[in-house]
Amino acid sequence: MKKTRALNEKGQQKVKKICRAAARVFYRIGYLTANLDDIAAEAKMSKGGIYHYFSSKDEILFFVLDNYMGLVLGALEPQLKELPPGEPKIEFIIKRHLELYANHKEESKTLLHDSNCLSSKYRKRIAHKEREYLRIVVNAISEYKWGKDGIKREEVTALAFLLFGMCNWCYNWYDPKGPIDVNAISRIIWTVFMKGISGYPEDGITKKN
Amino acid sequence: MKKTRALNEKGQQKVKKICRAAARVFYRIGYLTANLDDIAAEAKMSKGGIYHYFSSKDEILFFVLDNYMGLVLGALEPQLKELPPGEPKIEFIIKRHLELYANHKEESKTLLHDSNCLSSKYRKRIAHKEREYLRIVVNAISEYKWGKDGIKREEVTALAFLLFGMCNWCYNWYDPKGPIDVNAISRIIWTVFMKGISGYPEDGITKKN
Repeated sequence: MKKTRALNEKGQQKVKKICRAAARVFYRIGYLTANLDDIAAEAKMSKGGIYHYFSSKDEILFFVLDNYMGLVLGALEPQLKELPPGEPKIEFIIKRHLELYANHKEESKTLLHDSNCLSSKYRKRIAHKEREYLRIVVNAISEYKWGKDGIKREEVTALAFLLFGMCNWCYNWYDPKGPIDVNAISRIIWTVFMKGISGYPEDGITKKN
Repeated sequence: MKKTRALNEKGQQKVKKICRAAARVFYRIGYLTANLDDIAAEAKMSKGGIYHYFSSKDEILFFVLDNYMGLVLGALEPQLKELPPGEPKIEFIIKRHLELYANHKEESKTLLHDSNCLSSKYRKRIAHKEREYLRIVVNAISEYKWGKDGIKREEVTALAFLLFGMCNWCYNWYDPKGPIDVNAISRIIWTVFMKGISGYPEDGITKKN
């Protein structure tokens, strides 16, 4: 971003406005189809106004996703430390993940659908934050059932990915006007995952060598 | 497709070859970025050769996805009828879903990622087949635990989508060279889902009115 350090509050507001508008455009027509004109129109700004803050569409995508991953990580780790281990932590993670999704559906769909469009240097920075989130979730699952000497780390990682799959897939079917609201989905996922994990073999399925 | 009825075996082979090549290109660079030149190069054919069979990239995408959905539906319903109700049917569905994925990862990623790029007339035909698949899976889950008077149909539908989420999300993390193979993933998903469903409340979470 150009002149980041020099941004006053008005400038920061503009950047935020551009990112929100860009996320809406990416959500609607996809990153690859979107161009600077679409983003400028959505933000009700001139293209020159956008270029004052960003040098490319790639940079805008990075800012959209980096801000979103900032929300996803946020104070998650200290918040989890306040909770007793096991069920409450996993319940908290699921609820928080789905609420973030529901309140930022444009950004989360863009993350899931378009983050592979980022240029390499930006992709690495987002992937780093995604790995950080995965690590926190894997730890919470391990702690709940297996501790240090349980099943293979990669099997717990697979379980974390199943949980992400259940949560993230919602963007393909969840209808805010439909009969199942976000709270209900969150409880359904929590029930399936917790019952699934409680009954899961103590020594796992792939077994430790 | 042009001249479908007149296609001899050689023509059918060509169509198959173009679809396989197109799926590989879409998998690698995405449908929106891909063009007819990329597909022709991948299929080792001339662009004219491609146009002999297809009139547009949209039509190729439709054929790729329609063939894949043909495999997904295939003889699924008669095969399920041969199995006892409950666990065996759901186990069969999960195993089959993941095997199809593993053996057709280009087509399945294209379905998950790019089917929204189809023009409306084609999108409807693919969506119809997806709904058909959903119906079969929802029935298998209902039959296992709830029968006719169990929980709301939309809650069973949500459970089916959670299962799809776990299975389909694999394309974001599954590494054929990694420590967890497709069989293990299939058993992990099956375990989590079956334990999750067995312990699920008899009257559901959203309750019937």
